[in-house]
Amino acid sequence: MNARFYAPDAHRPGDLVPLPGDEAEHLTRVLRLKAGDALRVFNGHGREFDATVEQADKDGVRVRLGDFAAAAPEPRVAITLAQAVLKGDKMDDVVRDATMMGAAAIQPILTTRAEVTRGSLVRGRRRERWERIAVSSAKQCGRATVPRILDAIEFDELIDALGKMLLPLPGLMLVEPRAASETTPASELDLSPQRAATVLIGPEGGWTPSEIERGASVCRLITVGSRTLRADVMCVVALSAFFTMWREF
Amino acid sequence: MNARFYAPDAHRPGDLVPLPGDEAEHLTRVLRLKAGDALRVFNGHGREFDATVEQADKDGVRVRLGDFAAAAPEPRVAITLAQAVLKGDKMDDVVRDATMMGAAAIQPILTTRAEVTRGSLVRGRRRERWERIAVSSAKQCGRATVPRILDAIEFDELIDALGKMLLPLPGLMLVEPRAASETTPASELDLSPQRAATVLIGPEGGWTPSEIERGASVCRLITVGSRTLRADVMCVVALSAFFTMWREF
Repeated sequence: MNARFYAPDAHRPGDLVPLPGDEAEHLTRVLRLKAGDALRVFNGHGREFDATVEQADKDGVRVRLGDFAAAAPEPRVAITLAQAVLKGDKMDDVVRDATMMGAAAIQPILTTRAEVTRGSLVRGRRRERWERIAVSSAKQCGRATVPRILDAIEFDELIDALGKMLLPLPGLMLVEPRAASETTPASELDLSPQRAATVLIGPEGGWTPSEIERGASVCRLITVGSRTLRADVMCVVALSAFFTMWREF
Repeated sequence: MNARFYAPDAHRPGDLVPLPGDEAEHLTRVLRLKAGDALRVFNGHGREFDATVEQADKDGVRVRLGDFAAAAPEPRVAITLAQAVLKGDKMDDVVRDATMMGAAAIQPILTTRAEVTRGSLVRGRRRERWERIAVSSAKQCGRATVPRILDAIEFDELIDALGKMLLPLPGLMLVEPRAASETTPASELDLSPQRAATVLIGPEGGWTPSEIERGASVCRLITVGSRTLRADVMCVVALSAFFTMWREF
């Protein structure tokens, strides 16, 4: 298969569209493609095209869109991963992995034990960084959809928002085996397919008891096995379990 | 909970047992425990004990075993992860994650596209390194069992061994969505619990067509979704999916 590039302006066959700076750089400097070379582009919203490089020079890269190409199917359940911001580079790994796993959106959340502030995320331009990581992961895993990266919010804001949804229990909150009394193993989840779900995953130090209590008002508390899993791998474990239950895997 | 240490010689309450060098180091230098302090030890074979430090000095650490403590339950299905050796440190991550996920044994395999030789693994003392990583991961995830790390073998040797087993199809071989014609999605696996299974996962470059053909003679070819997953995360995805199907999660 030809190399894949992210072209957010790609909408209709026949159009001439520019590649963003990072993508143009990758095309010219790393893969050394030239005018006339074939490639594939995806627009991050589920569309994928065959395409041809029409211009690749110091003014940038433009590609001519050919036919629609078959994109890897998206999961039928749109999962928003509400992930407590992890330390250091761990959150980068979560964004990369959640994109590969098929999350529809990633909602960073600030919890009591997540040692990070909203201000530090803004100053560090972390959302922009995570967006680049999501694009890069979509390129590698063959997805034509790039999950939306939302602005970080407080845990309580998330719970309030979930409480206003018209679903019986809109959230699936991952908890440690012995962290709460009323928990449901992932394999006992209702098999009826749902269209959307928010999956809540805590930070390295776990949820506080009061977060679990608040969460339980709008979420099912879900366990995956009896071991203590690392926070940065939990999104892969949880999405694998849910997609298996929902027959996406 | 008290800190957990690996004590392979721990078998019966009341015994006085030494900690291995690494563990003694961790106890005295990092956690600075002293004679009289309480701890927990696990023997790597499923037993866990309350214990007390009886001696901690330049001659090493000895602990007096108290009562049996409740160990995190092991999966009812004993999974052998047959993983193509990955490049650089990636295999370390797989050993760490497979231990946390509950694998019973890890069988490194040499495949056509795995760029590594048996000689280089022996010279690099990689098995010993992976054993240390498995112990360390078991400490962190609360497992009392440390998976056995087997000596690396060729892919063909593994297939021959699986072919001699008395099970209808003893192996579950993970393949890319479009790599083969007769594949089974993970969620369509037979739900009847089995006692043991070997899960085969390929290298970064994937299986060769002839490996898939050989594998298909003794394995079911399993897919997990429609995206291309990174080789170093595949063990977490596959074990999550299988344990969900087998109601371990």
